[in-house]
Amino acid sequence: MGAAGDKIKKEMTERRRDLHRHPETGWTEFRTTAKVAEILRALGYTVHFGSAFIKPEHVMGRNIDVDAEKKRAVEQGADPKIVTEIGDYTGLYAELDTGKPGPVTVLRFDIDCVDANESMDENHLPVKLGFTSVNPGWMHACAHDGHTAIGLALAELLKEDQALKGKIRLLFQPAEEGVRGGYAMMAAGLVDDADYFIAMHLGLGKPTGEVYGGVDGFLCTTKLDVDFKGFGAHAGGEPQKGRNALLAAASAALNLHAIAPNAEGATRLNVGVLNAGEGRNVIAPNAHMKIETRGETDELAAYVYNRAEQIIEGAAKMYDVSFTITKQGEANRADSSPKLAALVSEAAKTVEGVTCVGTKRPMAGSDDACWLMKRVQERGGQATYIGIGADTAAGHHNGRFDFDETAMPIALDVLYGTVKQLNG
Amino acid sequence: MGAAGDKIKKEMTERRRDLHRHPETGWTEFRTTAKVAEILRALGYTVHFGSAFIKPEHVMGRNIDVDAEKKRAVEQGADPKIVTEIGDYTGLYAELDTGKPGPVTVLRFDIDCVDANESMDENHLPVKLGFTSVNPGWMHACAHDGHTAIGLALAELLKEDQALKGKIRLLFQPAEEGVRGGYAMMAAGLVDDADYFIAMHLGLGKPTGEVYGGVDGFLCTTKLDVDFKGFGAHAGGEPQKGRNALLAAASAALNLHAIAPNAEGATRLNVGVLNAGEGRNVIAPNAHMKIETRGETDELAAYVYNRAEQIIEGAAKMYDVSFTITKQGEANRADSSPKLAALVSEAAKTVEGVTCVGTKRPMAGSDDACWLMKRVQERGGQATYIGIGADTAAGHHNGRFDFDETAMPIALDVLYGTVKQLNG
Amino acid sequence: MGAAGDKIKKEMTERRRDLHRHPETGWTEFRTTAKVAEILRALGYTVHFGSAFIKPEHVMGRNIDVDAEKKRAVEQGADPKIVTEIGDYTGLYAELDTGKPGPVTVLRFDIDCVDANESMDENHLPVKLGFTSVNPGWMHACAHDGHTAIGLALAELLKEDQALKGKIRLLFQPAEEGVRGGYAMMAAGLVDDADYFIAMHLGLGKPTGEVYGGVDGFLCTTKLDVDFKGFGAHAGGEPQKGRNALLAAASAALNLHAIAPNAEGATRLNVGVLNAGEGRNVIAPNAHMKIETRGETDELAAYVYNRAEQIIEGAAKMYDVSFTITKQGEANRADSSPKLAALVSEAAKTVEGVTCVGTKRPMAGSDDACWLMKRVQERGGQATYIGIGADTAAGHHNGRFDFDETAMPIALDVLYGTVKQLNG
Amino acid sequence: MGAAGDKIKKEMTERRRDLHRHPETGWTEFRTTAKVAEILRALGYTVHFGSAFIKPEHVMGRNIDVDAEKKRAVEQGADPKIVTEIGDYTGLYAELDTGKPGPVTVLRFDIDCVDANESMDENHLPVKLGFTSVNPGWMHACAHDGHTAIGLALAELLKEDQALKGKIRLLFQPAEEGVRGGYAMMAAGLVDDADYFIAMHLGLGKPTGEVYGGVDGFLCTTKLDVDFKGFGAHAGGEPQKGRNALLAAASAALNLHAIAPNAEGATRLNVGVLNAGEGRNVIAPNAHMKIETRGETDELAAYVYNRAEQIIEGAAKMYDVSFTITKQGEANRADSSPKLAALVSEAAKTVEGVTCVGTKRPMAGSDDACWLMKRVQERGGQATYIGIGADTAAGHHNGRFDFDETAMPIALDVLYGTVKQLNG
Repeated sequence: MGAAGDKIKKEMTERRRDLHRHPETGWTEFRTTAKVAEILRALGYTVHFGSAFIKPEHVMGRNIDVDAEKKRAVEQGADPKIVTEIGDYTGLYAELDTGKPGPVTVLRFDIDCVDANESMDENHLPVKLGFTSVNPGWMHACAHDGHTAIGLALAELLKEDQALKGKIRLLFQPAEEGVRGGYAMMAAGLVDDADYFIAMHLGLGKPTGEVYGGVDGFLCTTKLDVDFKGFGAHAGGEPQKGRNALLAAASAALNLHAIAPNAEGATRLNVGVLNAGEGRNVIAPNAHMKIETRGETDELAAYVYNRAEQIIEGAAKMYDVSFTITKQGEANRADSSPKLAALVSEAAKTVEGVTCVGTKRPMAGSDDACWLMKRVQERGGQATYIGIGADTAAGHHNGRFDFDETAMPIALDVLYGTVKQLNG
Repeated sequence: MGAAGDKIKKEMTERRRDLHRHPETGWTEFRTTAKVAEILRALGYTVHFGSAFIKPEHVMGRNIDVDAEKKRAVEQGADPKIVTEIGDYTGLYAELDTGKPGPVTVLRFDIDCVDANESMDENHLPVKLGFTSVNPGWMHACAHDGHTAIGLALAELLKEDQALKGKIRLLFQPAEEGVRGGYAMMAAGLVDDADYFIAMHLGLGKPTGEVYGGVDGFLCTTKLDVDFKGFGAHAGGEPQKGRNALLAAASAALNLHAIAPNAEGATRLNVGVLNAGEGRNVIAPNAHMKIETRGETDELAAYVYNRAEQIIEGAAKMYDVSFTITKQGEANRADSSPKLAALVSEAAKTVEGVTCVGTKRPMAGSDDACWLMKRVQERGGQATYIGIGADTAAGHHNGRFDFDETAMPIALDVLYGTVKQLNG
Repeated sequence: MGAAGDKIKKEMTERRRDLHRHPETGWTEFRTTAKVAEILRALGYTVHFGSAFIKPEHVMGRNIDVDAEKKRAVEQGADPKIVTEIGDYTGLYAELDTGKPGPVTVLRFDIDCVDANESMDENHLPVKLGFTSVNPGWMHACAHDGHTAIGLALAELLKEDQALKGKIRLLFQPAEEGVRGGYAMMAAGLVDDADYFIAMHLGLGKPTGEVYGGVDGFLCTTKLDVDFKGFGAHAGGEPQKGRNALLAAASAALNLHAIAPNAEGATRLNVGVLNAGEGRNVIAPNAHMKIETRGETDELAAYVYNRAEQIIEGAAKMYDVSFTITKQGEANRADSSPKLAALVSEAAKTVEGVTCVGTKRPMAGSDDACWLMKRVQERGGQATYIGIGADTAAGHHNGRFDFDETAMPIALDVLYGTVKQLNG
Repeated sequence: MGAAGDKIKKEMTERRRDLHRHPETGWTEFRTTAKVAEILRALGYTVHFGSAFIKPEHVMGRNIDVDAEKKRAVEQGADPKIVTEIGDYTGLYAELDTGKPGPVTVLRFDIDCVDANESMDENHLPVKLGFTSVNPGWMHACAHDGHTAIGLALAELLKEDQALKGKIRLLFQPAEEGVRGGYAMMAAGLVDDADYFIAMHLGLGKPTGEVYGGVDGFLCTTKLDVDFKGFGAHAGGEPQKGRNALLAAASAALNLHAIAPNAEGATRLNVGVLNAGEGRNVIAPNAHMKIETRGETDELAAYVYNRAEQIIEGAAKMYDVSFTITKQGEANRADSSPKLAALVSEAAKTVEGVTCVGTKRPMAGSDDACWLMKRVQERGGQATYIGIGADTAAGHHNGRFDFDETAMPIALDVLYGTVKQLNG
């Protein structure tokens, strides 16, 4: 039987559905942050916002209207006082300091949604039960609503457990999508003293009942925007006066895709979006590209990224235009620490509802929890990324995505069981 | 002294300002067309709309919401009944048939505005006098408001003149900007019986008081949109399944700009706008390009256009994507008939306010009146494009453009004087 | 103890050095073929040349002056009568038909050299012992001289062995470098009746004493030449009349290198050589490219090749030039049959000088023996590619390449031992 | 009647044919220089070679084997002693100093041939009369053989004329083709003291009998070679280690051809030759391009050249390769001084055989005599480029080119008549 009572499970489901109904895309999670703060404070936690939690100078991919988003958050039920307290940057952490000697264990829960329109199909559970997104274009289609609810339930269980030792820190991360927030949290020093670090994800293509103590095979990735700035001129009357940003971008795009493969492992580059020009008869004075690079290792990722920089600089030179490269997100790669992963797997074996436990499995995506994992490992600690299987109605990021809520108590029990082992 | 009395001149200015306040971009001129119709009918003319005036199958660069535009036009003062009469296509013609044997003379007045935001500078005359555009993004920045007002004043003078012989047809053309409407008017046969054709433009870089009986040196131009349609695929997970429209467009753009110059004369090509892709991590499934080709002669224009077609087809082939080329506008070139130009110049010499008369001067732009000019000349008639100098506050198409209204009576007198010569 | 007596070993070394001194690049092996024929005939074999051995219509990458090469071969010691017998195509096969029922076993030995200049370094063994290449630009830098000598020694051993059953066929293949000759041999039906097929290579990065019963992991590859034919015109005087093959090739090259990676496995494409144009002031009327495509599987190879074809066709279309694609070589992939590989490994264990026997090891190159291997396997036979370790002075194809001649008797014993098992 | 007697005319024809039979391409004119020196010395002139005549540091497009060419020259009849005197650089000047006060007049005669194979058609005059080129690939197909012979005949006439005043300097220029030698002659100061400068060309598309006192409309041009140096790597095994010079060149070529046209006048750029790469399976470590830029004015030429530099640098940057740009030739533009041109025309009117005299006519090519013309004009002198019509059998630079030799005495008389006017 699970550690969590029926009340906690019920609460967890209700909170997940409330969050699902009010999804907030990366860096706009003012309502979510306020709700999380409210609940944690009610449990007796002190919460930490702003630069105690995240270093603004390392924030990536953030371009929002803070006032408008705060206004919306309040309209959607956030406590106005807390919204003011939050400041400009969303997310928070809380810490349980038992006062007893023991290890420092940090857990990460991501709270942002994805940019997608939720399906209105009548078979889509949120439609049936009436908790679809109220924010068009935003949707919890990657289970972060579940992660947040699980984190809150765990906070409750931990608070009630008098046997724990050491410190347990709970991170509620903004902007995991696009791997934008993780580095700035790491830079704030939130895991510098950690003995253990744990991140967790529901789903990942595995059914409810399967639990993986530590997933591997993350891809390093960098999201970058490139802007070329040239000079517009009438294409008929004085073409020689233009500095053509469109052609610089076109040339860059072609040559970026021609970066040589690397015999050391897989690499990827995609210019996914190119927008250039102002009018048919004007030499295009500007161009914007959205690019993504990937590599199986840090070295491969660096290889592609460095080649990309050379090409972009060269293309700008060719057309005598200026350029800026803006990192919009970045994740490195980390592997789960084998001992900690094994400990999680062991803890999972006794959890109700778990039918299959694996130690490791490869993961073909990116998560900026890796910054935190690697930081902990480099300083001598252990880190793992737990995969909690969950049946899903459609693939991650799809408008019809929905996950089996019975996976939530499993996740909660696995996490609580693991913390009991580490800090018990 | 001019033929027009003070009343007509005052009316002309008032109408110009009313039109300036209610600019309508190409194919949306429902209010303008209704107003013109209303005035011409009041003068006793029968007006002709729709397929009698313009052949829909030859219309280019038209992508509008007819109902919404008609609704707007009525809200801005158009007579609802006339708006209904107009049908889907704006513009109209009216004819003065004297009943007496004589030549057929056709005059063209363009009525659309340009896509520009009007300046709110306090020195801008429309600001001072309170007749700035009520339609954001649209502005009469190329003097077509003046042309329309002149055309209406001429209609009044002609109606009052009992001495005229033959027929005089007045064309009020939509969508001259982007050279989109002229060909479709020609295709409707409006000049097939013309002995004389006259188009006219204010400004053209010359001061008030200068008049050119016939300008020359128009550039042939084609405006084309290109769409590439490929297939999106996850750039990390299955890049091989994508068919990359962005790279097709980038490759096309580069090679289009590399079309060889032509020793026979000047040519131009500009890819002014390129928009491609949906998301950073998706192989771009679509791309859109706005292109303009030009040539000093029909042959040179055809050379560039044909090379462009080859390159676009080749780029699509390269990336296994489909493509469509849509002509959004086209103008050929025509030269003013020397005899008719000389006759206009002669007529201009006696006009009040004219300080300098030239027979010919080169023009470095395009106008789809050339379709009408060439048609008339090919069928044995004479055609000219008259330049009426006018001081301007800024260049054509600029948000601060404004022209000296005293050029309007000059234009009116030149036109009326010319018609008197031809049909007197 | 090895099966081969000292005489055979000594002969093997002498022949290898004679062949090393007289290297012949693919399709020019007239001296080598004549020498092999002479020796085999002396042993009592009948040899088969020409279309009995190789199908001319499937020959790739051959562009030689037959008469000049035959003349050279004779000057370098080939028997003029045999050179005449050979006809236009080099290489041959001989067969030992025991007259007794038994399996058909086919062995392949490649005889051509590589295009490289031999090192004149005093530490280079052929320099020390005076058997460096007499043919500048040609060098046995891939051990085919050893392979040929081993094949001849094996022929001698087989002829002396009265206990053998079935048939044993020995193929002496021309033009393995560039994977040009294998397909045409397969097309001649030389393995259609084979129960067993064996190819063998010395070196492959492994030291003397190691033997691998069957190597795997060949890469599929296609070597292709592309010619664009346009039209030259004076670049200053009439650029518009040119059809620019140089730009077609440049555009093709860039876009070929931008072929998307394939998530199913590694692929490669290289435009290694591009030559275009005739003069500085002439629009380039021609362009030639040497290209290589690779893939880990037949499907991946086909993916790259098919994309390459589309791009080449598209580039030609862009510049209104014609194009031809000529395959200059091609190899598929095949895996060694596990049972046969194991049998070879077993046989190797008893061979003198063998210190380590492996069953399989990956190979990161291409060999057109794969056509023969796959053919045999598809028809129900077994095939293997044996790796015989040999210390080398430098990498394969390097001008300082030299292999440890003591690996030759090991290879001979492994092959003879294997044949004894199969046909004994 | 012409000033030159029959003897001089006969000599002139004989010399022209001897030179035609022994053509020498730019910078290899050792036989021609020696012959010219021999004849001038026989007439009593002192000749000046080497750095007195040409500044080596400004020599362009010279890549020859001096010893081999001198050897050839001697074999073809040059005086070995003079060949030794010449030094490394061909060409020479001689001066007639009358000792009497008067102007300094400089005349330029170009002596090199073009790179072309002479036609062996039986109708080709040199075939008929047996004076075709003995140097395969080299041919006097631009009449410089005639120019040289005329220069020598003029030297003789001048020497005999006791009435002349001032100084007359005769320049025999090497390497006019490819506009390689002119700048270096100018740099040697040969026209710094000139009051008058005269260059002359036969043919130019006009028939025998027409004379133009001063042609205009030269195009500025620069001939440049570009070398990219990257790094070779095995395209299959370690493509990431390569730095691809072929793709740098391909990208440069495409973008060079996409340099925007200039509304101020005609410009041209041609990448006429591109050679890159070493082998099919090696990332190309090198690339070479032969490029030509042109412009109607110095400013237009500079516009294209500067854009080209940016693009080449950018392309190198893109592929992390180094590059060098080497000027292989350059000509500016100059216009004939009207007064001097008129004086020449006047002089031409009295010349026997002249049927038509023009003052100016446009010329659609380049000649590095312009460096000398412009230099003289900038220092206050007058300069002209005389066009002497001559019927030709085919276009300049064509293998069947031949000019009507009766144009030579006309040219001689025009030049002599002009000098008489200037220095008489």
